[in-house]
Amino acid sequence: MPELRKDPIYGRWIIISTERGKRPSDFVSLEPPKKKAAFCPFDVGNEDKTPPEVQALRESGTRANTPGWTVRVVPNKFPALQIEGSLNRRGEGLYDKMNGIGAHEVIIETTDHDQEMSQFPVEHLERLLEVYRDRILDLRKDDRFKYILIFKNHGEAAGASLEHSHSQLIATPIIPRRVIAELRGSRQHFELKERCIYCDIVNHELSSGKRVVHQNENYVSFAPFAPRFPFETWVVPKVHDSKFENRRFGTYRDLAEIFKDALTRINRALNNPPYNFVLHTAPCQDPELEHYHWHFEIMPKLTKVAGFEWGTGFYINPTPPEDAADYLRQIDLGNGQH
Amino acid sequence: MPELRKDPIYGRWIIISTERGKRPSDFVSLEPPKKKAAFCPFDVGNEDKTPPEVQALRESGTRANTPGWTVRVVPNKFPALQIEGSLNRRGEGLYDKMNGIGAHEVIIETTDHDQEMSQFPVEHLERLLEVYRDRILDLRKDDRFKYILIFKNHGEAAGASLEHSHSQLIATPIIPRRVIAELRGSRQHFELKERCIYCDIVNHELSSGKRVVHQNENYVSFAPFAPRFPFETWVVPKVHDSKFENRRFGTYRDLAEIFKDALTRINRALNNPPYNFVLHTAPCQDPELEHYHWHFEIMPKLTKVAGFEWGTGFYINPTPPEDAADYLRQIDLGNGQH
Repeated sequence: MPELRKDPIYGRWIIISTERGKRPSDFVSLEPPKKKAAFCPFDVGNEDKTPPEVQALRESGTRANTPGWTVRVVPNKFPALQIEGSLNRRGEGLYDKMNGIGAHEVIIETTDHDQEMSQFPVEHLERLLEVYRDRILDLRKDDRFKYILIFKNHGEAAGASLEHSHSQLIATPIIPRRVIAELRGSRQHFELKERCIYCDIVNHELSSGKRVVHQNENYVSFAPFAPRFPFETWVVPKVHDSKFENRRFGTYRDLAEIFKDALTRINRALNNPPYNFVLHTAPCQDPELEHYHWHFEIMPKLTKVAGFEWGTGFYINPTPPEDAADYLRQIDLGNGQH
Repeated sequence: MPELRKDPIYGRWIIISTERGKRPSDFVSLEPPKKKAAFCPFDVGNEDKTPPEVQALRESGTRANTPGWTVRVVPNKFPALQIEGSLNRRGEGLYDKMNGIGAHEVIIETTDHDQEMSQFPVEHLERLLEVYRDRILDLRKDDRFKYILIFKNHGEAAGASLEHSHSQLIATPIIPRRVIAELRGSRQHFELKERCIYCDIVNHELSSGKRVVHQNENYVSFAPFAPRFPFETWVVPKVHDSKFENRRFGTYRDLAEIFKDALTRINRALNNPPYNFVLHTAPCQDPELEHYHWHFEIMPKLTKVAGFEWGTGFYINPTPPEDAADYLRQIDLGNGQH
């Protein structure tokens, strides 16, 4: 019997379609093999082929826009939003529009063209998370920006146009509707219970254990109860915190560890699938929020979003999250790689 | 300068990313060539390879589940929702779920394995639209169903798993959130203006003309002001009507004509792209609604939905709808095909 499940924060229903029940092996090799591009603007030595860097982790003594970096942040050469100008909100007949003001940056995660995020040493991943934080702290000073989204597209089917491992940041002049829906849902729960719904979910998942993938002192990774996509995995701090950029636990070491763990399990279970991840954190101009809780959502792209999803906002997911978590837990991380 | 535009009904912002401005030729051949499947369960003679038909247009005297049909409706062999049973709404800790009750049908649109919907004679398309109507009228008698969505996935990248031209129907036990958002947005407009917002949009588009693709006596096709996707095209009745199944204009002849026109233009402009369409009509158990207006949304699948879209609910569209409509208007339909 298929099951309809409701996301407790967002209010979205999804269909766990057990008739179509799928194991990891049903999804393999959707991603075509990498084609080595003739030229990569993110490779060392090509620093002048990107817009000038806005931040970089570099060996001391090296100059901006030259080799010597380990993580490098540059404006997107084809930005979706433009940094200069004012919003100029205006009408056109019954329609509303404004200028596309915002920031669009690319975070080049590594100098190694062939290294995938899950292969980064934990220390390097920790540095990268610190760069995410630095960019948010820097950009939130610009009060035109109401939200800063960090995300990653990995693999062509997940929207990556360059294979060299990179994440992106877009700062937007309005709070995105998906975040507004999360804020609204979590506020409703708080008004009713005087507790953060994400804290409730973390406690529920830790005590039930059946959707948990991994945990360490400060974080837990789990398959959410009502995932849109097969093998969708969230990484959430155990203690309440509304903003990623707070770095409440002093360091991102534990976060780097659990993030690497999650990506490694997903890659091994699903044979290096295309995926997206997004960082959801409280709006950058808001104060700390009692009802909201930052988190990462990792979404392997194994199924096609089609007419039914576009027409309804429902999602059909052929893999129950309990099964997905079980598969991911059983992945052998062996050989000291981890 | 990129532009942020707000969908006046749904409230969704989209980014018209002029930096990435794309013409039809930038999108060509995303769809791999058709692979002739060894076996097609929708071909004439294979009627026993599908579940028994629930409706068919057939030559008189032919028996169900044998050749002699022109349009054939069967239950989906791998249904996302199941028709037997009760909803049994229940909780699981802080989560909510219910049984996946609903209907999932496949409408086999033609006996010709190789004919694409835009190639159907107008008369055949008119019959097909009547079948859509018949299915809605039949299924709405079951009061477990709150919504009936008709949609089509064309091409592998748009989620079609079989190439033989077919549409689908899913009846759901709850009104989908996307439809709820349209109902809410259009009700707000009605409360303010005492007019249907779709009627206002139709009038605005007809008088401005710059986003109109085609019109006939009863319908208009146009690129919406804030489209999620390049070349997204809506087909809307000119006169107010909340339910597709009313067949307010007596016949679907004009609708078949404009639908064929839209699909033909899209196919020629974009070289037979993958696409989805959805029919949005008022919830099947609701009375007629003054504020809501049924319509088709046709969405070519030319861009990848990636981390930014998943994280925000914004969409980045590289083709302004005014340009898309202009390209589509200029398509030469020549040679009496049309």
